[in-house]
Amino acid sequence: MIFEFQVRTTEREQFVDVTPLVRQALAESGVEGDGVITVFAPHTTAAVTINENTDPAVPRDILTTLDRLAPYRGDYDHAEGNSDAHIKSSLIGASSRVLFNGGQLLLGPWQGIFFAEFDGPRTRQLVVHVGGTR
Amino acid sequence: MIFEFQVRTTEREQFVDVTPLVRQALAESGVEGDGVITVFAPHTTAAVTINENTDPAVPRDILTTLDRLAPYRGDYDHAEGNSDAHIKSSLIGASSRVLFNGGQLLLGPWQGIFFAEFDGPRTRQLVVHVGGTR
Amino acid sequence: MIFEFQVRTTEREQFVDVTPLVRQALAESGVEGDGVITVFAPHTTAAVTINENTDPAVPRDILTTLDRLAPYRGDYDHAEGNSDAHIKSSLIGASSRVLFNGGQLLLGPWQGIFFAEFDGPRTRQLVVHVGGTR
Repeated sequence: MIFEFQVRTTEREQFVDVTPLVRQALAESGVEGDGVITVFAPHTTAAVTINENTDPAVPRDILTTLDRLAPYRGDYDHAEGNSDAHIKSSLIGASSRVLFNGGQLLLGPWQGIFFAEFDGPRTRQLVVHVGGTR
Repeated sequence: MIFEFQVRTTEREQFVDVTPLVRQALAESGVEGDGVITVFAPHTTAAVTINENTDPAVPRDILTTLDRLAPYRGDYDHAEGNSDAHIKSSLIGASSRVLFNGGQLLLGPWQGIFFAEFDGPRTRQLVVHVGGTR
Repeated sequence: MIFEFQVRTTEREQFVDVTPLVRQALAESGVEGDGVITVFAPHTTAAVTINENTDPAVPRDILTTLDRLAPYRGDYDHAEGNSDAHIKSSLIGASSRVLFNGGQLLLGPWQGIFFAEFDGPRTRQLVVHVGGTR
């Protein structure tokens, strides 16, 4: 079952905690038992990742390091000025998976699911698939 | 349902757009409704990623940056001379997922699915699983 | 069907080959036909990746390169002293997928599945979902 959400980003680079949206999709799906949720960003300058959602310094350190690995104003071929965002998208990945059982996400105690914006601010789409299995 | 394809690469490092193969697998599967497709590279010196497939400068910038992060002729322990390719494989990942609904891939307007070759040229395998869910 | 395992790591940074645990989960699931296994680390300072499990120099080169990209004693905001581990977790990813068919993992001849520890030694959890599909 597929759910679509909008995510509004306010910075060029930003982690937005979308765990509540994923919980909402699981609840609305009515899927019982266990399965896998796929959280997908249909964008080439964004990504989805799972990491600590308690201390905001963690996403900040990740973004700072990614900027060091692929600087915004680097020397790139792509003429649109957002090559760094494309590179970060492939380094982090367009989707994350989270398992569930009995209506609960099987996340670790520190884990949250983030939409990773690398070329905002924009209104972005997030596509969530809740897959129940036999 | 599982489909296997061959991908022929012609350079040491190269992105090959395999979106048409994934569309073919979905069509041949006959799966209706929604689900998740897993696109998997059964290789340790290659990967699968989703990014822009319009401007060829985007894959080029990604490959150039990966080479800066893990240089081909770097100082490595692994004696086969392709350590950089193993490292890039783990940075990008051996598989990508794409959602579908009603026979259509739910890719964003700029997204394509790439087989990422890091130690070619070779004839490579690509394994595609089309998973329909209840 | 979901299986939980404990993984005991003995170093701060270490790749542990968990392919035997994934094979065990597939066997115990009794799932016939084909499907996807999701191997998930419920931790924000660890990851799961697929790479060569023959030459131990390959995991070593990956860990050494990750340390160069995100140094242990780097300049970070997060005060717990393990920012590098959080960054590596998002670069590699909290989960990997492997396909199966007829009770066999569809891994390439050189591929193994690794739990990647970035902030050990610890006793870690590994959650494996075996998803059979129609």
